[in-house]
Amino acid sequence: MSDLDLAKRCADEMWAGDEASRLLGMEVDITGIGAATARMRVRDDMVNGFDVCHGGLVFALADTAFAFACNAYNRMTVAASANVEFLRPAVLGDTLEAVASEEYRGRRNAYYAVRVENQHGQVVALFRGRSVSRDEAVVAE
Amino acid sequence: MSDLDLAKRCADEMWAGDEASRLLGMEVDITGIGAATARMRVRDDMVNGFDVCHGGLVFALADTAFAFACNAYNRMTVAASANVEFLRPAVLGDTLEAVASEEYRGRRNAYYAVRVENQHGQVVALFRGRSVSRDEAVVAE
Amino acid sequence: MSDLDLAKRCADEMWAGDEASRLLGMEVDITGIGAATARMRVRDDMVNGFDVCHGGLVFALADTAFAFACNAYNRMTVAASANVEFLRPAVLGDTLEAVASEEYRGRRNAYYAVRVENQHGQVVALFRGRSVSRDEAVVAE
Amino acid sequence: MSDLDLAKRCADEMWAGDEASRLLGMEVDITGIGAATARMRVRDDMVNGFDVCHGGLVFALADTAFAFACNAYNRMTVAASANVEFLRPAVLGDTLEAVASEEYRGRRNAYYAVRVENQHGQVVALFRGRSVSRDEAVVAE
Repeated sequence: MSDLDLAKRCADEMWAGDEASRLLGMEVDITGIGAATARMRVRDDMVNGFDVCHGGLVFALADTAFAFACNAYNRMTVAASANVEFLRPAVLGDTLEAVASEEYRGRRNAYYAVRVENQHGQVVALFRGRSVSRDEAVVAE
Repeated sequence: MSDLDLAKRCADEMWAGDEASRLLGMEVDITGIGAATARMRVRDDMVNGFDVCHGGLVFALADTAFAFACNAYNRMTVAASANVEFLRPAVLGDTLEAVASEEYRGRRNAYYAVRVENQHGQVVALFRGRSVSRDEAVVAE
Repeated sequence: MSDLDLAKRCADEMWAGDEASRLLGMEVDITGIGAATARMRVRDDMVNGFDVCHGGLVFALADTAFAFACNAYNRMTVAASANVEFLRPAVLGDTLEAVASEEYRGRRNAYYAVRVENQHGQVVALFRGRSVSRDEAVVAE
Repeated sequence: MSDLDLAKRCADEMWAGDEASRLLGMEVDITGIGAATARMRVRDDMVNGFDVCHGGLVFALADTAFAFACNAYNRMTVAASANVEFLRPAVLGDTLEAVASEEYRGRRNAYYAVRVENQHGQVVALFRGRSVSRDEAVVAE
């Protein structure tokens, strides 16, 4: 099995249990080893009191892309911290795309950058996350 | 109208439109001027592939507490950036409470700390957010 | 030896080797267990191209207060990450004070908030740091 | 005058006043528009109590690279916030290089990533900063 196939099998396993991302209507693609894209349409049950997408859900989209990117290596890996900059509101009906890429991967900690854009290619948010890996497999090899 | 009454009226106005926080089953209390508490039970549609609450939804809870805290002054205020540290997983059935307090309020930017705990009083996440205010009222005075 | 005495002995040991804080003219006080204050005057060799204190040196002051606060427990502890918000410039001749307090201390990671103010009591920067402890003593007990 | 020449003239103007970066023995290069590199050798007056480079000075190096990168457009620009992850200690005698690149530039806020490596090409720190620009020139055009 190639490294990319392994990354995709980890993603399938994660997706099977990821009720939260499904609740938010997300779709996820593995675009490389340590790279993932997540998409979400801003539905009318996702807006806040100012008629824009709740920032927490924009974060959740980035966090999902991050989670799928950092679990590519078949070691159970979770988010330890994250930083997000909200550049522009996402509004009802927007389709958001979060692209996660690896900045650095150490033995236990790794760092990913995620850029969230809307359907016009405008940046909605910049996210950076730190992950921690455990000595546990995601799927049986 | 007292300052606290005004903060509560702003909160009522925000809550009326906050579909996202409702989708996630949150409850919000204004506990002071610039202070708010949000609660959420981790439902089975909120877990991720590792059977713990999606980090994005823990963030969303903190973000909601932050949003209600920083809109106390009847100036439309949005999140500009945030940092979150995930200390301990939240699991299915947990009841999480996010307590937001003001660290510093300037003319345009303000900073809030949010602590998310579970029903055992254990810290699940530490969050700090920066908000930006516009010269627009939340409610008519 | 009381816990506070131990914290102070750790601080003395650290201070003996802390050439960097000395280079910047800092003074440090242990104000409690997990709490420290660092002070620094903005000298004319500390300003940047816009005649204000280099942000890196404001950060360094906060980082020193953080380092002395988190080494109170006689376990060698280092900064793992930090976030800083620059609220107001510090100018030549200002005396800055950084007050570090503990937000949460786990087994291995701990979190500290540091507030940097000038001599007028105005907030110059807000800092939050995460530390990591090793199983190594700072001083012999 | 080309855009790159303008960026370099802004850098020269900043460097003339940047006593802090000189105190720390830094060298700065403009490597493109919105891109800069800063170098610093860890001297014996830069270490802390654990014989490694004070984290604040590693931050300061990254901050200098960031400052020179974000002032390329001849609008006076300052750091508003930053996040740093310390991955590996820098030790006495190391030569550190901080490479700053632009992640996103808006009308008023811009975001830069800085990677700090040692002479072995090992990552010492990852930094991300947000800058704010004013309607004021750095140099007369």
